[in-house]
Amino acid sequence: MTKLEPSPRNKALAGLAHWRHDPQRDAITRAFTFANFAEAFAFMTQIALVAERRDHHPEWSNVYNKVEITLTTHDAGGLTQRDVDLAHEADRIFQRFGTRK
Amino acid sequence: MTKLEPSPRNKALAGLAHWRHDPQRDAITRAFTFANFAEAFAFMTQIALVAERRDHHPEWSNVYNKVEITLTTHDAGGLTQRDVDLAHEADRIFQRFGTRK
Repeated sequence: MTKLEPSPRNKALAGLAHWRHDPQRDAITRAFTFANFAEAFAFMTQIALVAERRDHHPEWSNVYNKVEITLTTHDAGGLTQRDVDLAHEADRIFQRFGTRK
Repeated sequence: MTKLEPSPRNKALAGLAHWRHDPQRDAITRAFTFANFAEAFAFMTQIALVAERRDHHPEWSNVYNKVEITLTTHDAGGLTQRDVDLAHEADRIFQRFGTRK
């Protein structure tokens, strides 16, 4: 898995409207807000299972109803297609939580 | 629940050898390391259930096999007995992981 070149990376970022790109780390970050801790952790559990299945894991933090996820591929030294795919998956999982409330 | 005064706080901290106290935030932090992501997240799941049952939640982050937990009581503006109790519970849960390996 190799780091995305600027052109495909920018195309990928254009499709991830809620994520911000940190050019220094070549990583993307999104903050997610939920109704409460139980919802936030249920979301994290779904992400954890996806991450484990793909053997590609997020850097993330949680404070009560907020979850912040950062994605980058350490082995590649920056953003790869695996990060972009996991970001889209996180967006999809989050959307299911949104519509459930 | 009120913030611990310096004397009981220092006594409590003496019993939490693996935690470091940030005097500025009056918060305690410990880093936990596991065999892999699955173990780290299993630990987090147990902490999450305890936190939810007690209605007292950690600030925490995870990167692959590492989990960092910070405890403080926002409503009290600092460290309370609930933080100390949750820290001990985290230590106990971690010990079970340690002995399982």
